[in-house]
Amino acid sequence: MSQRQTGSRRGSGLVVLGGGKPYQSKPVGEVWLVGAGPGDPDLLTIKALKILQKADVVVHDGLVSDEILELSPAAARRISVAKRKSRHSYSQDEINRMLVAFALEGLTVVRLKGGDPFIFGRGGEELEACRAAGVACHIVPGVTSALAASASAGAPLTHRGSAQAVTFVTGHASAGREPDLDWESLARPNQTVVIYMGLSQAVPIAARLMAAGRSAATPALIVENASRPNERRLVTTLSGLAETASALSGPALLIVGEAMALAQAGEPAELAALIQKAPLHEALA
Amino acid sequence: MSQRQTGSRRGSGLVVLGGGKPYQSKPVGEVWLVGAGPGDPDLLTIKALKILQKADVVVHDGLVSDEILELSPAAARRISVAKRKSRHSYSQDEINRMLVAFALEGLTVVRLKGGDPFIFGRGGEELEACRAAGVACHIVPGVTSALAASASAGAPLTHRGSAQAVTFVTGHASAGREPDLDWESLARPNQTVVIYMGLSQAVPIAARLMAAGRSAATPALIVENASRPNERRLVTTLSGLAETASALSGPALLIVGEAMALAQAGEPAELAALIQKAPLHEALA
Repeated sequence: MSQRQTGSRRGSGLVVLGGGKPYQSKPVGEVWLVGAGPGDPDLLTIKALKILQKADVVVHDGLVSDEILELSPAAARRISVAKRKSRHSYSQDEINRMLVAFALEGLTVVRLKGGDPFIFGRGGEELEACRAAGVACHIVPGVTSALAASASAGAPLTHRGSAQAVTFVTGHASAGREPDLDWESLARPNQTVVIYMGLSQAVPIAARLMAAGRSAATPALIVENASRPNERRLVTTLSGLAETASALSGPALLIVGEAMALAQAGEPAELAALIQKAPLHEALA
Repeated sequence: MSQRQTGSRRGSGLVVLGGGKPYQSKPVGEVWLVGAGPGDPDLLTIKALKILQKADVVVHDGLVSDEILELSPAAARRISVAKRKSRHSYSQDEINRMLVAFALEGLTVVRLKGGDPFIFGRGGEELEACRAAGVACHIVPGVTSALAASASAGAPLTHRGSAQAVTFVTGHASAGREPDLDWESLARPNQTVVIYMGLSQAVPIAARLMAAGRSAATPALIVENASRPNERRLVTTLSGLAETASALSGPALLIVGEAMALAQAGEPAELAALIQKAPLHEALA
């Protein structure tokens, strides 16, 4: 059971009516780690929608769109824990403590994450914090962005004869360092490699894969803003990956593998229409 | 545009009113490869539900539950292409031709697959058949069962310090053969390996992984019927994987990796209640 009132004014402390010690009477809330999917609100699961509609507090990443946040109750408190340069960013430890604290106040806490909570979402750390505090924690899986990117591009992640396996890795690395991945394994043919958060590291990633023996001609796909209205898909090869990546700046996936030969490039509808309409001299200006 | 009438009586041929040759006037349908998710109807995406509700024909696997099929219009034709021993099984080529033929009749064809169409769903082959025939083919991603299994078990597929990558492979192999996988890569520590359709091959899979150097003590999880009311989760280690797998017979995932140390076992609710209630001598009978 949740107490919606406390959700909107939690700084004021909890007034417990009737006898008993406050901490005995206080209902215990719970934490839901919910995958919001890749961005398109229609790629939420029905379960995610139902849980979101019961939230007292929504603690969300920057990648979760306003359209999805607006599916939570108007009275729910919404807290962004997005990383930003201009103001304080919450550390993972602070987020963990926030989730537990709200639940211990009796609230239904939804931790809303882009994609799936258990694929590069640090959901495991939040789950462990809840377990350590004795707070119930449930997980709602989501469509991880690799699935949306491959669906949009029409390029399967596994495919008979060209992709017998698919591996998800992250290109994210500590400041100034290259990602520390098992390049030798990733360089084997007949498999798809999906690199999350790899755009800024595309130069070393492509170089390492080729140095470890993956063919420079291996088809590759970059998808920026998968499933959103501004989705952009660029089709290239491993040797062209770094240069192609340099044209993009949004959240993007790099996908390398023989099955990406089926991928279809695509621009956002409005950009494509603009290019179509513009006289050539304007397009080149 | 679709012609619902043809959906219910397609054997009768298409009557075209007005002038023109029939094949010119016939509207062209389209094919949607739709991920039905792991089984729980609430783990459908909103988009999958919307598309399913527009279907004239639903061509589905055996793993798609009746509850989900019933979300399609009552007038839609439903065709199971599940593999069964007792009657003719459709080959992949026959399925491809069926999808194209229905679309060329002007129908909205939904090819409904368990999980995601592009993760061991052979969606790529169906897409290629549509492209070759000039039929529009769209893909709706779904929650692949590995995500649902890890969510239920509370064990992340990637996790700081214990799973820097996750790989999906299939344990399915040609009759009488072992799956031909890159055991050396899969045996490296600090990664999660998910084996789809691996139950019947658990003996060679575990043996090969250990022979290639993966520690026998690596935590492992088997999830049968992920997200369904009869979901069963068994927690073991790589050395215990084969014996544990022998207790199960339904569709199941094998998951091996250090992060599976967080996994929680679970029985179907009704089975757990039965075990709880039964006097010990009955439980042992």
